[in-house]
Amino acid sequence: MTTEQLVAQIHKKKSFLCIGLDVDLAKIPEHLLQEEDPIFAFNKQIIDATHHLCVAYKPNTAFYEAYGIKGWMALEKTIKYLNTNYPEIFTIADAKRGDIGNTSTMYAKAFFEDLAFDSVTIAPYMGKDSVEPFLAFKNKHTILLALTSNAGAFDYQTKLVDGKELYKQVLETSKAYKGAENLMYVVGATKAEYLSEIRQIIPESFLLVPGVGAQGGNLADVCKFGMSSNVGLLINSSRGIIYAGADLNFADSAAEKALELQQQMQIELEKLS
Amino acid sequence: MTTEQLVAQIHKKKSFLCIGLDVDLAKIPEHLLQEEDPIFAFNKQIIDATHHLCVAYKPNTAFYEAYGIKGWMALEKTIKYLNTNYPEIFTIADAKRGDIGNTSTMYAKAFFEDLAFDSVTIAPYMGKDSVEPFLAFKNKHTILLALTSNAGAFDYQTKLVDGKELYKQVLETSKAYKGAENLMYVVGATKAEYLSEIRQIIPESFLLVPGVGAQGGNLADVCKFGMSSNVGLLINSSRGIIYAGADLNFADSAAEKALELQQQMQIELEKLS
Repeated sequence: MTTEQLVAQIHKKKSFLCIGLDVDLAKIPEHLLQEEDPIFAFNKQIIDATHHLCVAYKPNTAFYEAYGIKGWMALEKTIKYLNTNYPEIFTIADAKRGDIGNTSTMYAKAFFEDLAFDSVTIAPYMGKDSVEPFLAFKNKHTILLALTSNAGAFDYQTKLVDGKELYKQVLETSKAYKGAENLMYVVGATKAEYLSEIRQIIPESFLLVPGVGAQGGNLADVCKFGMSSNVGLLINSSRGIIYAGADLNFADSAAEKALELQQQMQIELEKLS
Repeated sequence: MTTEQLVAQIHKKKSFLCIGLDVDLAKIPEHLLQEEDPIFAFNKQIIDATHHLCVAYKPNTAFYEAYGIKGWMALEKTIKYLNTNYPEIFTIADAKRGDIGNTSTMYAKAFFEDLAFDSVTIAPYMGKDSVEPFLAFKNKHTILLALTSNAGAFDYQTKLVDGKELYKQVLETSKAYKGAENLMYVVGATKAEYLSEIRQIIPESFLLVPGVGAQGGNLADVCKFGMSSNVGLLINSSRGIIYAGADLNFADSAAEKALELQQQMQIELEKLS
């Protein structure tokens, strides 16, 4: 999917919501545990109930790997279901991968070719030659971790390197990577005040913003400081949506929560025009 | 496996060799492609031919994920084969994972419980709360990326943060993590001269050293600067060993290359006593 197609979907749906499919068998409605593939059964119902309210889904691979082969089969079924039934949806493999050149190419093949995701999240620690192999894939997007939403973000990411915070160094240096037009960035919503400085470095790049909801960020603040002329934001909510209900109507409960966020996003989008 | 058991194996086998099982279907002997599971068939023969010459095997997960479900099944079969037939071998999932707290716990379950690896490699960018969930597992080891062996290592890892290189900050701060006794570190052999400074920060921790061989590091230098009183080194070779031959006798060719390294290691170990 191209960035232009993503932006068009945002305007059409009046939403820049991304729903995180972080499926934990200990948290899904009990009646689903009878299904042959409870994880996929859960995802399918969530997707069917919310796809008109969001523009992206983001399965975090950890939650699938934890269940071994069965988990990977559920991940494969989920992405196939999305690509077949809702091809207008932008798909994100939240995998936080990163390795040396030829190995990163293997990861890129895994997520862009074998699983056919539109994008994958990548950790920047190993530098340029660990990221560029992902950028070589046309109309695929590499979402680089810049500033994360956890407490540990302050351990290294906000430390000064040559007088500038490490996460800003990541933004600055990655702009010059070959294929940089395919870059997006993870920026945690718990630090909305940082967004205006980030926009000075990367005025137009899309930002994937976790931490609205369970991790506690404020949607209006994120939009005020982070929205670009082409929107430039995907705001993720995982647990706040998918675990909104635990009974037979869990998917409707999820849709209600998604609708609340979509309606707030519609107001923010109207400010743009 | 405990660190003491690993050290005992090193002295028994007179080897601190780790063999990287980075299996690329485009590089394995052609006759194996007829097998039902060519990746596992390759690994099995390599393992049977080399297990007495090394103390560890390290599959890089990228090479398995690239083949989807079949790849994960090959990874699962490989680790099960190792744990069943050669339980004295230290196993490393070279996965370079890392995510926020509850998600890191899911990754830890995937590699320590579901697949039953002894250790996993982890990227440090997200800080303390992304690493500590791994350290909570008893007799399991977390191998943190410090200084990698690729060109991109100089992008951020060697940059000064508060007057000290970032990779040294990673070493210093991680020493204080809860469960730090379960930490090991990745340090690339292409920078053997850094090892003496690293040993001032972490005198006894085990270092996983890639880059001897294909990436061009020198074994004697690595030992001179990096060996500790309890050896403290696992030196990895992947392509240099596993792709030493491409015919029916490929496993024997791999064993020859592994023997060369083991013999050099024996000389280095004799210097210790």
